[in-house]
Amino acid sequence: MGKVLIIGAGGVGTVVAHKVAQNSNVFDEIMLASRTKSKCDAIAEKIGVNKIKTAKVDADNVDDLVQLFKSFQPDLVINVALPYQDLTIMDACLIAGVNYLDTANYEPKDEAKYEYSWQWAYQDKFKAAGLTAILGCGFDPGVTSVFTAYAAKHHFDEIHELDIVDCNAGDHGKAFATNFNPEINIREVTQKGKYWQDGKWVETEPHEIHKPLNYPNIGAKESYVIYHEELESLVKNFPTLKRARFWMTFGQEYLTHLRVIQNIGMARIDPIIYNGVEIVPIQFLKAVLPDPGELGENYTGETSIGCRIKGIKDGKVQTYYVYNNCSHEAAYKETGAQGVSYTTGVPATIGAMMFMKGLWRKPGVFNVEEFNPDPFMEELNKQGLPWHELFNVDLEM
Amino acid sequence: MGKVLIIGAGGVGTVVAHKVAQNSNVFDEIMLASRTKSKCDAIAEKIGVNKIKTAKVDADNVDDLVQLFKSFQPDLVINVALPYQDLTIMDACLIAGVNYLDTANYEPKDEAKYEYSWQWAYQDKFKAAGLTAILGCGFDPGVTSVFTAYAAKHHFDEIHELDIVDCNAGDHGKAFATNFNPEINIREVTQKGKYWQDGKWVETEPHEIHKPLNYPNIGAKESYVIYHEELESLVKNFPTLKRARFWMTFGQEYLTHLRVIQNIGMARIDPIIYNGVEIVPIQFLKAVLPDPGELGENYTGETSIGCRIKGIKDGKVQTYYVYNNCSHEAAYKETGAQGVSYTTGVPATIGAMMFMKGLWRKPGVFNVEEFNPDPFMEELNKQGLPWHELFNVDLEM
Repeated sequence: MGKVLIIGAGGVGTVVAHKVAQNSNVFDEIMLASRTKSKCDAIAEKIGVNKIKTAKVDADNVDDLVQLFKSFQPDLVINVALPYQDLTIMDACLIAGVNYLDTANYEPKDEAKYEYSWQWAYQDKFKAAGLTAILGCGFDPGVTSVFTAYAAKHHFDEIHELDIVDCNAGDHGKAFATNFNPEINIREVTQKGKYWQDGKWVETEPHEIHKPLNYPNIGAKESYVIYHEELESLVKNFPTLKRARFWMTFGQEYLTHLRVIQNIGMARIDPIIYNGVEIVPIQFLKAVLPDPGELGENYTGETSIGCRIKGIKDGKVQTYYVYNNCSHEAAYKETGAQGVSYTTGVPATIGAMMFMKGLWRKPGVFNVEEFNPDPFMEELNKQGLPWHELFNVDLEM
Repeated sequence: MGKVLIIGAGGVGTVVAHKVAQNSNVFDEIMLASRTKSKCDAIAEKIGVNKIKTAKVDADNVDDLVQLFKSFQPDLVINVALPYQDLTIMDACLIAGVNYLDTANYEPKDEAKYEYSWQWAYQDKFKAAGLTAILGCGFDPGVTSVFTAYAAKHHFDEIHELDIVDCNAGDHGKAFATNFNPEINIREVTQKGKYWQDGKWVETEPHEIHKPLNYPNIGAKESYVIYHEELESLVKNFPTLKRARFWMTFGQEYLTHLRVIQNIGMARIDPIIYNGVEIVPIQFLKAVLPDPGELGENYTGETSIGCRIKGIKDGKVQTYYVYNNCSHEAAYKETGAQGVSYTTGVPATIGAMMFMKGLWRKPGVFNVEEFNPDPFMEELNKQGLPWHELFNVDLEM
């Protein structure tokens, strides 16, 4: 039904390549491209070199991207490169007439700022070009946004309180490692907390608000309110929300490591001069830390991510909890990548399917909750991320 | 009485330059040299540019050193550069006919190994050249070795147990910083422990043996058995020693930071490839951490370093504790450097005085305990590091 170009050959790119190749009824031509072609070739070899083409591309370079787009002529680009590269890829899509999907919002390299403003500013350009841009189609943002849209559509007349709860109860056996790009991970986790309350943002110190929450099949885990990008679009698209928060679990050791990394200056995103060369400490740290793509082999345990929602249905207060649990071992067995990559890559693939099938296709720039959630929810169950729902349980909030 | 060349313009070099300049009756010409001449000039400006010459020298380069030695013609080089540079400086001394003094043993860049073998191997060469090399003339090694020699000479017939106790109860107000070159500091502190017992070395895990010890004017501080280089020469020069250990105080936060620095790979001394360039993580970390030379300004509290000795005097068991306490604030006020630099730089200056006065001068390579301790002990009281002795107190060992 269509040609797809995947940009990025990390853990998420590995999963997307596997899942896209599994759905050859939807994707009839596939290309995987990244700065390092050998990484693409290694992934393609595992999947089958007849199923997937590879290419080298510098995603920071619009001309380089346009050249590749024009020669391969994809219907859709799945951007699972770095968030810094969202805008260059969107620019290239506009020039070459290609539709766009990503999993994380653009952020500038030199400030840790999570907001959609830069990408939402492309709304008119994509509309005028008759092209679709689907933003934030991983798990969170992505599935959590679809969960919210599904709840609002089917189970509530009005949603009032949303708590997105993200638990990783996995064990990778390393003293310290991040589950995705350490640079992005550390920037995200060490920022100040922020949540939506009564029409405005409330800022907190990093990790100021926390309590143990119970996760299905896992039990109680200390969970921390952090800011997460889907909150920005969800409070805009669901204006009845009185409160919206994002909770993530962290172990004490993980937090100690983060605290020290900040104390010693290795979380800095401004360059220092080392032997006459500018080097950004957090980027150097990334080169020293374990590669998240290599964590899969001995990763045990599971993730549990979901939405806990309170609102009104037929004049009565109702609570609702919809979630998915994902096993790191099963994810690795299927794709060679761990659960955190898997839960991001599968939804990106489903989003691409929605586009290819014409179900999520309209000119402009959209967050995923702006599309019909039903076919996406159906596909989650088929593609390896089955979900479960609980009604009127104690949300612990 | 003589010309002295100081190599190294860090915190210790700053103190040596100040103290040497204060003793113009002994040192009639002074030069301070380092890789970065501007650092020397800044120090010279504070002391008085008429009192001290400056020069640029690459201490890794024997030819460069020889050229400087031949033009300035010092009687003695005080080496307070990096321990990696001990051998190039000793080689240059032999070529140019200059006497030598340092404060820390040579170690190769690519292995954290503290031993005198490399420098002791120069014994015949210095002897043949009629030159004196004085090794390890800081506080520890240095004063601790002189303390031991003084105790053995005056207060014991036989010394049996030696515990060197090094407490830094200062507070520099930073979340994490090292008191001297972080590269050397972290390599030293994260190595395995080792002590002398009944004629052989006993190895321990890092920080395996620890207990609170009481320090004069400070109180109880958790103290850890680590290996320290003066133990090697002391057990050789005092063969009656049945046990010799080195204890250092560390705060829990300091140890947590060290543990994390190791866990994340930033203590590695082997290079990684970053953007095509070889970079040693611990050297990069050094560039990110606070400069130990800049810690002085707000440093409060004091250090307490001494020797606790048990042995036989006139057929009876005797205990002896000799120590110095040094105030970070007083050190900064006098020299612009904190106490850890001060307690290293003052003994180096006194060692140089001993040489210039002909009291510590004989052809060959020697550790400081092989010289007469008495004039050195007398000078400690005059130069800012007064010492105190206690007899037959509980050594807590």
